[in-house]
Amino acid sequence: MQSFIPPKRTLMGPGPSDVSPRILEAMARPTIGHLDPAFQVLMDEIKELLRYVFKTENKLTFPVSAPGSAGMETCFANLVEKGDKVIVCVNGVFGNRMVENVVRCGGEAIVIQDEWGTPVSINKLEEELKANPDAKIVAFVAAETSTGVASDTKALCALAEDYNCINIVDAVTSLAGIELDVDGWGIDAIYSGSQKCLSCPPGISPVSFSERAVKIIKDRQTPVQSWFMDLNLVMGYWDDTGGRSYHHTAPVNAMYALHESLLVVKEEGLENSWKRHADLSQKLRDGFAEMGISYLVDKKHALPQLNTIIIPDHITDEAAIRTRLLNEHNLEIGAGLGALAGKVWRVGLMGHAASQENVDKCLKAFKAVMN
Amino acid sequence: MQSFIPPKRTLMGPGPSDVSPRILEAMARPTIGHLDPAFQVLMDEIKELLRYVFKTENKLTFPVSAPGSAGMETCFANLVEKGDKVIVCVNGVFGNRMVENVVRCGGEAIVIQDEWGTPVSINKLEEELKANPDAKIVAFVAAETSTGVASDTKALCALAEDYNCINIVDAVTSLAGIELDVDGWGIDAIYSGSQKCLSCPPGISPVSFSERAVKIIKDRQTPVQSWFMDLNLVMGYWDDTGGRSYHHTAPVNAMYALHESLLVVKEEGLENSWKRHADLSQKLRDGFAEMGISYLVDKKHALPQLNTIIIPDHITDEAAIRTRLLNEHNLEIGAGLGALAGKVWRVGLMGHAASQENVDKCLKAFKAVMN
Repeated sequence: MQSFIPPKRTLMGPGPSDVSPRILEAMARPTIGHLDPAFQVLMDEIKELLRYVFKTENKLTFPVSAPGSAGMETCFANLVEKGDKVIVCVNGVFGNRMVENVVRCGGEAIVIQDEWGTPVSINKLEEELKANPDAKIVAFVAAETSTGVASDTKALCALAEDYNCINIVDAVTSLAGIELDVDGWGIDAIYSGSQKCLSCPPGISPVSFSERAVKIIKDRQTPVQSWFMDLNLVMGYWDDTGGRSYHHTAPVNAMYALHESLLVVKEEGLENSWKRHADLSQKLRDGFAEMGISYLVDKKHALPQLNTIIIPDHITDEAAIRTRLLNEHNLEIGAGLGALAGKVWRVGLMGHAASQENVDKCLKAFKAVMN
Repeated sequence: MQSFIPPKRTLMGPGPSDVSPRILEAMARPTIGHLDPAFQVLMDEIKELLRYVFKTENKLTFPVSAPGSAGMETCFANLVEKGDKVIVCVNGVFGNRMVENVVRCGGEAIVIQDEWGTPVSINKLEEELKANPDAKIVAFVAAETSTGVASDTKALCALAEDYNCINIVDAVTSLAGIELDVDGWGIDAIYSGSQKCLSCPPGISPVSFSERAVKIIKDRQTPVQSWFMDLNLVMGYWDDTGGRSYHHTAPVNAMYALHESLLVVKEEGLENSWKRHADLSQKLRDGFAEMGISYLVDKKHALPQLNTIIIPDHITDEAAIRTRLLNEHNLEIGAGLGALAGKVWRVGLMGHAASQENVDKCLKAFKAVMN
């Protein structure tokens, strides 16, 4: 057995996205201890940078030492207690995963279904809020990675607030790719992933919690069922008011990479990053249009960072096309997931991968393999 | 804010240990997708290498995509159901963490306490097994990271078996540092960490489960309370019999590093690695003896990879000594944890850090700061 030398791909699937050499280089710096004073400085800077990309002043803003799914579970495991009613708006795979989380935390999930490829319905949510005055939480996915749809996070959070519910928002694919304003929109609990529009290697999940959410966590009647994810313990580890207490061992080098990726976003400017994603997505869309390829999602709800295109009728073996893109062009795109398997492809333009070069490369490769 | 350039330390604490440039270089290779066929090859090789270092044929052997604490929780959350009786042998911090896990999974923890700095008592375990014929699981720490003690894993597992209990073994610090034989000793569930004697950056937890443990997990009456850690789902992700199913997004670059670190162990040979740790620990011990520094743990139970030394009486500010080691010699050692805080220091000789050069460096630095 030999050292593993990965092929050099262009990552235009639903994530991970292309990681720039600058971030890989940061990740390879010498490991230090997680209790080293120098690491404490890194942790403080990461929290400050995360507050910038989330647009929040939330004190409890930090990266969970595990992938986005663990970030999701961190939100549910800490905020849901046995018997709590949670309204979950489902319009794709990750909404269903939220339902799984609610049930496993002993909560009662009130599920609202919207068609895959459409945004979460505000009217349906209002009906359920009226019908369930004892609901405690509203949960939804801001940017569904399985369909490429953006929902109206601001309006959904405002509506939940009108009915005295806190909210849990999945921003795995949205963070740094489209507008997101944690404080401005009144988001209570939010999680993301390192490997989407931050263009960091996968494995880390940035999260943020409002004061209101923190109070609920501190006032819980029962312990959080997960020791690893219990924020009452993790807060002490990421605390910056002195007296940092040992919890687990942070993934030190992954934190170097996250820090560097956040710095890249800060240097570009968050709004500029959103605009770059929008502009390049338009170019990709124009190119696909020329090829007669259409989108699953109405343009006004479509995510620029994840372009879900309908597989043309004449393609009888869609997997073969993806294999050719990978083998002949080193281009990774995403297959359809769940109900959309075999019906769509998902073409990501996330973070470092959202470049003119990649748009050109992608269109050229599609032209070559679709002939 | 600038890129983070860590200081260059020598890591001789309780972990993370020094990571060799070879492994850091592997970690910095270009990210590929976690569904890429090339990544599947990597996963298969990692499983094969993990079976080698664990000495097992267990099919369910893979790295959890999160730190050692999540590996611990993966074992308990999957094997413990509400009401299950679990005998936990506690002789340090990590035994207590096991108790926390049992309780949070709804199990009943029967706790056996042994003095910190001594191994788990086989006699006490036998008494509790006799007193609790309905116990389902025996759990203990093979190598207590908080005290530097090795327990007799082989004997403890055999005893549990005599009373029809399965076992859960913490091998976070032991793996690749001292003898460990998962199949030979009849271990049912075991977890470790990447950042100890494998000398990989922290963040990944190798685990392995016997057929008997897998059957229990598959036959559970209730769902595993954690979605992220549910092995019934994770098994499908790490499956190598075709039909790999999406679960979470694996931390791709961390897996490159793990693969390389396992390859390093394989190249040296597992038994040679154990011997190197033992030999260098003896040299360190001789050096400390010359300085009049004694060990907390009886030599026959002391871990070579984690040397717990008693802070001499004349040292009135032990933290100041550690700070001087760090600032003047770039040497990290570990403080005492829990009941041993302020009483001992923990000097690691783990993996790549277990070298003659480090032994010399460490003794020289101690001599300089203890004067």
